[in-house]
Amino acid sequence: MAKLDALIDELVTANRILAREGVVDSFGHVSARHPDNPRRYLLSRSRAPDCIENDDIMEFALDGTPIDARGRGPYLERYIHGALYEARSDVMSVVHNHSESVIPYGVTGKAIKPIFHMGASIGHEVPIWDQHTKFGDTDLLVRTMAQGHDLAKKLGKGATCLMRGHGCVVVGPYLRRTVYTAIYLELNAKLQMQAEAMSKKVRFLTKGEVSKVTETTSPANVNRAWENWCRAVDRPYRD
Amino acid sequence: MAKLDALIDELVTANRILAREGVVDSFGHVSARHPDNPRRYLLSRSRAPDCIENDDIMEFALDGTPIDARGRGPYLERYIHGALYEARSDVMSVVHNHSESVIPYGVTGKAIKPIFHMGASIGHEVPIWDQHTKFGDTDLLVRTMAQGHDLAKKLGKGATCLMRGHGCVVVGPYLRRTVYTAIYLELNAKLQMQAEAMSKKVRFLTKGEVSKVTETTSPANVNRAWENWCRAVDRPYRD
Amino acid sequence: MAKLDALIDELVTANRILAREGVVDSFGHVSARHPDNPRRYLLSRSRAPDCIENDDIMEFALDGTPIDARGRGPYLERYIHGALYEARSDVMSVVHNHSESVIPYGVTGKAIKPIFHMGASIGHEVPIWDQHTKFGDTDLLVRTMAQGHDLAKKLGKGATCLMRGHGCVVVGPYLRRTVYTAIYLELNAKLQMQAEAMSKKVRFLTKGEVSKVTETTSPANVNRAWENWCRAVDRPYRD
Amino acid sequence: MAKLDALIDELVTANRILAREGVVDSFGHVSARHPDNPRRYLLSRSRAPDCIENDDIMEFALDGTPIDARGRGPYLERYIHGALYEARSDVMSVVHNHSESVIPYGVTGKAIKPIFHMGASIGHEVPIWDQHTKFGDTDLLVRTMAQGHDLAKKLGKGATCLMRGHGCVVVGPYLRRTVYTAIYLELNAKLQMQAEAMSKKVRFLTKGEVSKVTETTSPANVNRAWENWCRAVDRPYRD
Repeated sequence: MAKLDALIDELVTANRILAREGVVDSFGHVSARHPDNPRRYLLSRSRAPDCIENDDIMEFALDGTPIDARGRGPYLERYIHGALYEARSDVMSVVHNHSESVIPYGVTGKAIKPIFHMGASIGHEVPIWDQHTKFGDTDLLVRTMAQGHDLAKKLGKGATCLMRGHGCVVVGPYLRRTVYTAIYLELNAKLQMQAEAMSKKVRFLTKGEVSKVTETTSPANVNRAWENWCRAVDRPYRD
Repeated sequence: MAKLDALIDELVTANRILAREGVVDSFGHVSARHPDNPRRYLLSRSRAPDCIENDDIMEFALDGTPIDARGRGPYLERYIHGALYEARSDVMSVVHNHSESVIPYGVTGKAIKPIFHMGASIGHEVPIWDQHTKFGDTDLLVRTMAQGHDLAKKLGKGATCLMRGHGCVVVGPYLRRTVYTAIYLELNAKLQMQAEAMSKKVRFLTKGEVSKVTETTSPANVNRAWENWCRAVDRPYRD
Repeated sequence: MAKLDALIDELVTANRILAREGVVDSFGHVSARHPDNPRRYLLSRSRAPDCIENDDIMEFALDGTPIDARGRGPYLERYIHGALYEARSDVMSVVHNHSESVIPYGVTGKAIKPIFHMGASIGHEVPIWDQHTKFGDTDLLVRTMAQGHDLAKKLGKGATCLMRGHGCVVVGPYLRRTVYTAIYLELNAKLQMQAEAMSKKVRFLTKGEVSKVTETTSPANVNRAWENWCRAVDRPYRD
Repeated sequence: MAKLDALIDELVTANRILAREGVVDSFGHVSARHPDNPRRYLLSRSRAPDCIENDDIMEFALDGTPIDARGRGPYLERYIHGALYEARSDVMSVVHNHSESVIPYGVTGKAIKPIFHMGASIGHEVPIWDQHTKFGDTDLLVRTMAQGHDLAKKLGKGATCLMRGHGCVVVGPYLRRTVYTAIYLELNAKLQMQAEAMSKKVRFLTKGEVSKVTETTSPANVNRAWENWCRAVDRPYRD
């Protein structure tokens, strides 16, 4: 399979996985930077993740302009993706979602921190971006590149950023790793909420532990999960 | 398909979706105003939502009198629907349910408020109606038009109203939007409960944000979810 | 179908339903009084509820002696059933289970009370029986008629009784109603736990409301749920 | 079927069961001591539990050296298994997992204690091992025999041990019993968390009760659950 076709196929799989794992529901999306052109990215037309087929995957310029739309309507919030690819050349994939456990953290201002080794990939800290600070009353959607740039600034060099009253973004060095981080961000938030309800003295991972886990999480680790997720959504697994 | 037949078909789909999404269990119901006669509405015979077929959909006058019952037994609580259609000419669809997270709000008197953009469609506030206030000890079911009118008064011009010790009602300008609101009312309540357990300083959506989200939630947004829900319950999706 | 065969068939269905609704897992059981002989009851051999077939249903004397065992091994805890049928001539069916939300109430001594109309069938109050009080350190199983009689005394004239550190029993005037009560006891406990975590001022159903709901809950209401549950476990529904 | 082949088959079943019951996700593993050679154990190659087939089961020396690897890559954390088999001649099976409810206990230092009779198999107490105490900042994985020995020391003579910021280990006298304990450790932790949120006066099982339940939990009890779990994962059940 050609490199581009393989990535499109994997992007469809990623959508189905995120839906099954409860990271996205009818809303939320995942993209990948174009393998041959770093100024472009691949993202579905406006459709629920679990319904997406290969033909739904569109190509966009970083400013959100569709390349060869062929009548397909894009997501209003595609600017999230373009702005993050523009700001971070190391980022090859972006997830935007509203998974359940990240919402309470975003609206209380409490910090999500890695609580177990599977959560280390979220990074040392998870900043919270509030669209209201700079843009006032909006419908909370990221509808412009200016809003996307502001979000990118808050994300900084990290892997994850909450969006107050909305959801979060997750970025990564390759598609599977980004999906992996998005799934464990949700789980880390869920378990942290329980631990913090039990005790004020929660022991989080040390900075050194977070760094070591992040360094040693290899594509082989991620692939162990990827095979499992592919099986669950009945999609072929490729090494 | 004729307009009426299409709506009946969609109403069956709505029942199945609400069951799968956990908004109704064996109880709860959804209706639509008759497309040709605003003094009538469509509602299933007394049956669990997940079991309903097209032939179960009955037609009722606003006072709850069945039109051509053909031996089908109606829900005891159909007066909820008639009373709300009577009070609100803008309402084209009504859901009544006992979804899990709305119950605790109804019995504690705590207010549900939009906590994330998906929750904005519940409206600026969710009043709580207590049947006991006016009707004393009852079996809590809305068994008369008088009880329905009292509920309609508490609902006012809003989209949602809790019923203490019982459940809630959700109304909307079209069937799919009403189902959408009912699903996200439940999710908003669930996430709000978690956020309020974490902190006393929960930042809800501003009034301006709620208004903007409500204005910009288009049938296209709702349809993105509708397609996804149809797929999950194995019913055909129509634009 | 003969009356006995029909009841055996329904008892198998009841087991499957309780498993699917999360009231029992691999453990827990449901029985029915024999339709022709009030001194006997029907209960599966020792097997997980979701695996039970018609041939697994055994007949027992009230003291727990199997009638025509044909090599089938009975549950060690069958004395729960016999003792309750003996003590209560109005009881035609018994469920014993360890569903999740009843455990925390049993071990904290907090009282479960009806919080919404679906929960009213659990009765005005749910007593807590502690096997330790009379029998000291045991393996907590009800292994003798003496233990069963002590449990029956605590249950009194009610429909439900918690067993500290173990689970609960539910009794009813017919099989479907008992299953119905067991399912909503679990849900009531779950929702009550959430409400009590939110506020110290939880408004429960009044005594009058509980009585009215109990009086008006007819076999037709229960059958609406029964049809739905049969569908979910792929068993035929009979009126 | 030869004894070894039967055990390999059962080990595959155990993996599938642990996945379905939510004890493992894409990570976590279960092993059995070799039936003919107590200095060896059986454990899958590095693969997600729900994907494992009979050919994935490898044989290891206690120090973690694969016997006849045939290109199959082992789990990095296999030292957990070898170290526990070495330290405890009574242990015939080991589970390592990160199930949801054990994580909050591990990071708060709160003790898990048996709260209901199904939880008694976790033992009188569940110690917490912190890899950081002796080994400082690591990626939290048990990558050496030295780490495994330290964990074995903390486990002592018990059946369960939490690993702070990581998960837990469960050991047992035979494979099915170990799986049983792992499943009920997770459930006990979940229910205990709820009970402790409700009240400061939680009544746990007495030491005498824990001992009695442990003594009377027979293979027949465990098999009742095993048959049920086999059915759920569509694997043949053998007595």
